[in-house]
Amino acid sequence: VFLGVLNGVGARTIAVESDDSGMRIDRLEECLQQLKRSNELHRLKMIYVVSDFENPSGISLSASRRKQVVELAKQWSIHHRIMVLEDAAYRELRYNGDPLPSVWSFDENRETVILAQTFSKSFSPGVRVGFGVIPRELVGVIGNLKGNDDFGSANLNQHLMATVLESERYEQHVEIVRQSYRTKRDTMLSSLHQEFSDLPDVRWEHPRGGLYVWLTLPKRIETGFSSKLFEFAVRTNHVMYVPGELFYPTGDPAMQKNQMRLSFGVQSLDGIREGIGRLAASVRDLPSCDE
Amino acid sequence: VFLGVLNGVGARTIAVESDDSGMRIDRLEECLQQLKRSNELHRLKMIYVVSDFENPSGISLSASRRKQVVELAKQWSIHHRIMVLEDAAYRELRYNGDPLPSVWSFDENRETVILAQTFSKSFSPGVRVGFGVIPRELVGVIGNLKGNDDFGSANLNQHLMATVLESERYEQHVEIVRQSYRTKRDTMLSSLHQEFSDLPDVRWEHPRGGLYVWLTLPKRIETGFSSKLFEFAVRTNHVMYVPGELFYPTGDPAMQKNQMRLSFGVQSLDGIREGIGRLAASVRDLPSCDE
Repeated sequence: VFLGVLNGVGARTIAVESDDSGMRIDRLEECLQQLKRSNELHRLKMIYVVSDFENPSGISLSASRRKQVVELAKQWSIHHRIMVLEDAAYRELRYNGDPLPSVWSFDENRETVILAQTFSKSFSPGVRVGFGVIPRELVGVIGNLKGNDDFGSANLNQHLMATVLESERYEQHVEIVRQSYRTKRDTMLSSLHQEFSDLPDVRWEHPRGGLYVWLTLPKRIETGFSSKLFEFAVRTNHVMYVPGELFYPTGDPAMQKNQMRLSFGVQSLDGIREGIGRLAASVRDLPSCDE
Repeated sequence: VFLGVLNGVGARTIAVESDDSGMRIDRLEECLQQLKRSNELHRLKMIYVVSDFENPSGISLSASRRKQVVELAKQWSIHHRIMVLEDAAYRELRYNGDPLPSVWSFDENRETVILAQTFSKSFSPGVRVGFGVIPRELVGVIGNLKGNDDFGSANLNQHLMATVLESERYEQHVEIVRQSYRTKRDTMLSSLHQEFSDLPDVRWEHPRGGLYVWLTLPKRIETGFSSKLFEFAVRTNHVMYVPGELFYPTGDPAMQKNQMRLSFGVQSLDGIREGIGRLAASVRDLPSCDE
């Protein structure tokens, strides 16, 4: 969705390679150097990072890299300030381990990092209230833009959230949500283990939070909307997934066509088991090209 | 506000002269001819009209002109379809007379007029739910734009409005709102009559609906944010108004600097009487330039 928004305003996006600790800082630096060489560094406005349980991979950025992203952004702010947008939408949905310090916390003079967070994941999507912590110089501009866009958020919903936060029911609610999702995640991971272990070259991430499991199939099995697998899964086995290729910027040379994002958010435990079963059946029984 | 939004997306706005029956159709046609002569007709996307109780003037577009606007838009749709945006935000706040047919109702094949309406004025501003009736060919595009802007309206609020509408409490509520505003409007008009009648060259509209009274002072008395009157009214007499010049497009040669918009929406009856008294005192006792 965010890639669509960026395309809509005419921005160009460049993907930076990740590994199990999130965005690779060496790759980010190479990317900055490449932009400098091609005389395009002045066009770079922002480094976007989902710090916790990234959608779709479920991976979090390590603490040391959080610090390095901020340092790099400051160091390379030659033509103008390069902002870091920290999208922390999933931050509160952590099911194991301690929270990491935010990227924002490493921006000591508060002029580089925009921290964006929402109550949609932790409290209720239908309320559509979130918050941002932004450098002072951007407050006026972002306020104007938002005013032009929506003439202000619904204050009924803001009052509702304020009341919930003041009542201390918010933390109680988040704990319930967390517990429910934790169980769903565990169910999805154990179903995947059970159903996919006998299939060669299938692997998936074990997310410590968030709402998604990122699954990679053998190279030859494409997952896109027009793929054989997608049609077979949806039409014959009535199970749906989000094709992995939707999560790469247009023209990204690193794009893989054999991945998918699985969601455990809305399904019941039985629904998750059933869905993973159907998905495995779809991969296992996929009609081959020769037939 | 809407002028600001249009500026923000780089659109040029051209003002069309109005009289007591709203936008003058002969002036609109002259404007279209002028655009044709200057080879700019292909740039014209939309004719914007507030059909009922326009902000700030309180004037409504006459029924015959509503029909003519649609006819003109269709007739001049040479390069592409020219849309008419009917902003009917104040439609339900009518205090005298029968409702006029909407501009939209004259667009028989439903391809020229976009009708936009809101529950902010008639029900509750804090809910921020409205609706539009749009030509079929625009549904996809506008849906995508809105999706990129806000990722969908708050469905808590949509459900709330749906429940209120189904319960038939909506009409009851609007009638209460209408009655309350009618009394406030009458109070403002009688206060104006009482306080301003002895001042020469002051005139004001008598709106049949909406939330505003549009007042014109003698030419020599400017009303802008940096005017003597504004400072005297706000600083000394503690009364506030919206300067009329804010309602003209940038560079509009017809702009007058001696007008103001008065709102009777939020004040109590006593507050309205007090405010108009203070405003009249501000005009009457305005320190002259010689002092």
